[in-house]
Amino acid sequence: MTQQANPTLLKNIRIVMVNTSHPGNIGAAARAMKNMGLEKLYLVEPKDYPSLEAISRSVGAVDILDDAVVVKDLDEAISGCIWVAGTSARFRTIEWPILEPKECIDKALENIEQGEIAIVFGNETNGLTNEQMERCNVLLHIPTNPEFSSLNIAAAIQVVCYEFRQALVKVRATTPKGSKHRYDTRADATQLDGMYGHIRDALDQLGFFGTKNPDVMMRRLKGLFSRAETTQREVSIIRGICAAIQGKKRPR
Amino acid sequence: MTQQANPTLLKNIRIVMVNTSHPGNIGAAARAMKNMGLEKLYLVEPKDYPSLEAISRSVGAVDILDDAVVVKDLDEAISGCIWVAGTSARFRTIEWPILEPKECIDKALENIEQGEIAIVFGNETNGLTNEQMERCNVLLHIPTNPEFSSLNIAAAIQVVCYEFRQALVKVRATTPKGSKHRYDTRADATQLDGMYGHIRDALDQLGFFGTKNPDVMMRRLKGLFSRAETTQREVSIIRGICAAIQGKKRPR
Repeated sequence: MTQQANPTLLKNIRIVMVNTSHPGNIGAAARAMKNMGLEKLYLVEPKDYPSLEAISRSVGAVDILDDAVVVKDLDEAISGCIWVAGTSARFRTIEWPILEPKECIDKALENIEQGEIAIVFGNETNGLTNEQMERCNVLLHIPTNPEFSSLNIAAAIQVVCYEFRQALVKVRATTPKGSKHRYDTRADATQLDGMYGHIRDALDQLGFFGTKNPDVMMRRLKGLFSRAETTQREVSIIRGICAAIQGKKRPR
Repeated sequence: MTQQANPTLLKNIRIVMVNTSHPGNIGAAARAMKNMGLEKLYLVEPKDYPSLEAISRSVGAVDILDDAVVVKDLDEAISGCIWVAGTSARFRTIEWPILEPKECIDKALENIEQGEIAIVFGNETNGLTNEQMERCNVLLHIPTNPEFSSLNIAAAIQVVCYEFRQALVKVRATTPKGSKHRYDTRADATQLDGMYGHIRDALDQLGFFGTKNPDVMMRRLKGLFSRAETTQREVSIIRGICAAIQGKKRPR
């Protein structure tokens, strides 16, 4: 299914942290969520919360912490959600569909327009219990180095939020058009041809070609300037160099 | 053409952290790297390192910290790399190609079989300087919530390492490799530096700079050559031209 870009759907995603031990991870998770435009944090029986360390690690995402909903069990956290994914660091023995992030997010997007969905992260040491996983529609597994597989929980939340943003906000990063002076627009074929002729004359005058085949040399230089998508300003600089070579040299 | 999964290429990636202020971020970065199978960490003048906090936050990725190379500047960190991406939190005014993670990693994979590549992360507060960004072939921007865009540096490293693992630890489609002669391989940072120095000397000797600012001129030329992904053969041609300029000119 193809999903149109729709950043407001990020607000339909709950991040649920279950029995989190370290408040710093809650703060870092809040920051990761806000960075990616997610807002809804649910905390199931956090061990140490509220906490100054959570605020400190959130670095400005305090609003996410302020709005976080602290609940007593997973059922309450996912109440009203139409679809739930649980995260698993290991491939479990329980027979539950295990998806990689991109597959999981595709699945999530099939549901997200109809209501809220949840991604559930277990305790740092033990993950989710089998009972908690059975409350989920699918399990999400982030592939890692098999010899060192335990992701920090906030890092895992960062990856998941990042993938949701990638999926829901398709804005291409491009060099801002406005900042470019007209002079910086791509040189056209005529301007490039003029430059190539000038380079050839200057190199010839310099005696650079010697026994080399000028056609082969020029072809290689043209390859370089083509790949670079040379701008008008650069053409002007290169022709300035050619002129300097010619002006300073007496013709042979 | 389909390329087989090749996790060993993860070892060709250097993560470079420049002037990192918080040792906890270095530890978290080491953990993120090891989770995703990356190994090579370079630290350019870290503010507070070695540090117990780095070790604590690495949670078992101490081997990455032990092997981390501490260097005095960016040039040293990327020495020998054939391709370098700098990360940028903002859309800069400098005219440099800005890529999103997936585009950037596609570019990286075009180079990674030929040698080491580097992804460079600036200081937590200030990012990379313009001068440091100009040492990079491209800029990498991780899309974020425009109202809260500053990613934690270890979180950014987590996302980048995750994307590299996604790309390299499964079968993926790549563009067919041409039958390129070895001489046509990409010039590395050291070779490009040598060329830039030679160009500058030659243009200076030619009297080209005149009232122009040599730094600005050189920056523009570097931009051109970076975008072109200049090859070793082209470096050799350009240096040949510089030598011809110098040889034919009497020193002023």
